[in-house]
Amino acid sequence: MKFRITGRDRRTDARTADVELAHGHVHTPVFMPVGTNATVKAVPVEDLEDMGVRIILANAYHLYLRPGTGVIGAAGGLHSFMAWKGNILTDSGGFQIFSLAPFRRIESEGVFFRSHIDGSGHALTPESVVGIQLVLGSDVMMPLDVCTPYGVPREQAISALEITTEWAVRSLAAWRRAGGGTAGGTGAGAGGTAGGAPGELFGIVQGNFYPDLRRRSAEELCAMDFPGYALGGLSVGEEFSAFIDMLGSSSGLLPAEKPRYLMGIGSPDFILAAVEAGIDLFDCVYPTRIARNALAMTRLGPLNLRLAKNERDQRPIDPECGCSTCRRFSRSYLRHMFKCKEIMGAVLATHHNLFFIQDLMAGIRRSIDAGRFSAFKHEFLDRYTRGEP
Amino acid sequence: MKFRITGRDRRTDARTADVELAHGHVHTPVFMPVGTNATVKAVPVEDLEDMGVRIILANAYHLYLRPGTGVIGAAGGLHSFMAWKGNILTDSGGFQIFSLAPFRRIESEGVFFRSHIDGSGHALTPESVVGIQLVLGSDVMMPLDVCTPYGVPREQAISALEITTEWAVRSLAAWRRAGGGTAGGTGAGAGGTAGGAPGELFGIVQGNFYPDLRRRSAEELCAMDFPGYALGGLSVGEEFSAFIDMLGSSSGLLPAEKPRYLMGIGSPDFILAAVEAGIDLFDCVYPTRIARNALAMTRLGPLNLRLAKNERDQRPIDPECGCSTCRRFSRSYLRHMFKCKEIMGAVLATHHNLFFIQDLMAGIRRSIDAGRFSAFKHEFLDRYTRGEP
Repeated sequence: MKFRITGRDRRTDARTADVELAHGHVHTPVFMPVGTNATVKAVPVEDLEDMGVRIILANAYHLYLRPGTGVIGAAGGLHSFMAWKGNILTDSGGFQIFSLAPFRRIESEGVFFRSHIDGSGHALTPESVVGIQLVLGSDVMMPLDVCTPYGVPREQAISALEITTEWAVRSLAAWRRAGGGTAGGTGAGAGGTAGGAPGELFGIVQGNFYPDLRRRSAEELCAMDFPGYALGGLSVGEEFSAFIDMLGSSSGLLPAEKPRYLMGIGSPDFILAAVEAGIDLFDCVYPTRIARNALAMTRLGPLNLRLAKNERDQRPIDPECGCSTCRRFSRSYLRHMFKCKEIMGAVLATHHNLFFIQDLMAGIRRSIDAGRFSAFKHEFLDRYTRGEP
Repeated sequence: MKFRITGRDRRTDARTADVELAHGHVHTPVFMPVGTNATVKAVPVEDLEDMGVRIILANAYHLYLRPGTGVIGAAGGLHSFMAWKGNILTDSGGFQIFSLAPFRRIESEGVFFRSHIDGSGHALTPESVVGIQLVLGSDVMMPLDVCTPYGVPREQAISALEITTEWAVRSLAAWRRAGGGTAGGTGAGAGGTAGGAPGELFGIVQGNFYPDLRRRSAEELCAMDFPGYALGGLSVGEEFSAFIDMLGSSSGLLPAEKPRYLMGIGSPDFILAAVEAGIDLFDCVYPTRIARNALAMTRLGPLNLRLAKNERDQRPIDPECGCSTCRRFSRSYLRHMFKCKEIMGAVLATHHNLFFIQDLMAGIRRSIDAGRFSAFKHEFLDRYTRGEP
């Protein structure tokens, strides 16, 4: 993997970069649409390509449970299985085991849990999670980690941090045994494809919302020299202010010369705050999930398409948007789709929201390269938070 | 409307024709995908265009109830509302009131019924149904008719027939008062658009499964000189053999120089039998509905994508199909989509089934023009009914 910083904002830590992965270049700051089950819900892969998406996120936990690595391996890996030519980052499952599994027991060796789908019992170790992601052929893998909810006692946060560090050591060793890191940052070869060299492996910083624990976790992980670093354990019920505090005390701990990934963040205000702190990668179900619930993003704030006020509104979701939904369909039509529970409601609204956030990220990148990120951020948020869509 | 026969089979009554409607030419025999609620379920309108669909069916009953003609009128008609540039035929609602409404009372004046959506009470007359379709801007309208289930007593079939004929007279009068038929078959002008000249109005033959009643209905309607004719009252629970008998005793009663439309038919065996009898237009929810239930059409018969045998099957749904689903996705992946209840399962399978039936219709047209329809039919059905997909 080559990571090359291409632009820096004048007043903030915001930066643009070019990340060269096995399935092509990614320009950061980037938002990765979430394709949990090997599909970005309600979005054809051609549409992702058309709107310039170069990297998506999939989930090792979900795909391990269903359809299983045997099925995806038989297809030659996840790219081939889902017919996606771009890059794929796979989350390890740490967050999902924490948030979805009806039962889990974390031990030093690994985690035992019950499937949220059928209640069946499973065990995962740092090594097996790397193995799963090798079969998937992920361009970027994440190691198994331990997530904790917002507000846990310090002792619990320390315990989670310590296991996360231990597991990071073991994950890195397993990755290196499989040939990880041997491509030497050239980005060449079949990296990230099943059968080729392994994709990259990022470290995940935990520590809950204790600044000193975040520092300790970051120091322990940075000493291991991962190709990139993530801040994990967010979107666990915290307020915006707690998020901002954590961000301020954490992002500066990550090496500036490597990609920084903030896990589970996808609303414009959170993204803008994190870009300002120097974060490069984001993922979140937010834009796609709210779309399926008829909430469309506009430059003047979110718009609930189900509301009666849209009944005869001939305007597109966002008159400033150039997406194929906004070029063809009115709020009136989209409201009708949602009222009738028509599949095209979810399809059209999801397309718009992803296009909207892609457009936001492109605007962020341009503003950084022009050295005016702060102005962009304030202009965007002023309209987004105070507007009447 | 211009209706020009372009080809005739040598041994059967099958024919090809060019139908010029307000939104372009339609080559028959044609299958009209069903877009009940102003959307062909799970299919983007661009995809319909791309696969060569020139006419779809929408439903006056559904659209009258939701979102209402006020909303569609405010959008400038149904084409504009749903961003569809091709032709639209709208069913009158006779079949839906018969099959969906929890309560209905048919009187000479019109029909009183309760909505299947919210139980609200409504009255429709032949005149108001023409009026609704004028607002929709349908390219082809259908008059209000009375459908009866398979096997009703003769008296009930006679009563339905007589009211259907009375209503046909009134529908035709209302249509002519609105300017219907004045375009004089030129197909020119803004016909079929809200605000332009009205679209065409077809007569609907009823008579249940009594051959003499079908003859009487056809004679009464043909005397009125509609621009086209439909056989209604099918897909009401009859066996294939009863359908074939009705077809044999009915299709020859319709004028050869006008389009013949068989309502509610969409499986390959029924379509092939009807084309052989000289039918030109078809519509049915069959291909789209079964797709949402994971049943995919192949040249070797229907394939249930949910079956375990597909788990690691890397073949496309139909190796002979050129649709975008078959070009990109395996049975293994599609099974995974359905197992996970992912929206893309319905989207991808529906695209395939519509492409499949479009391809079947194109094959039918080519075989008729080549004078070898019977051979085509037998070859197709032999593989479709005996194959192992």
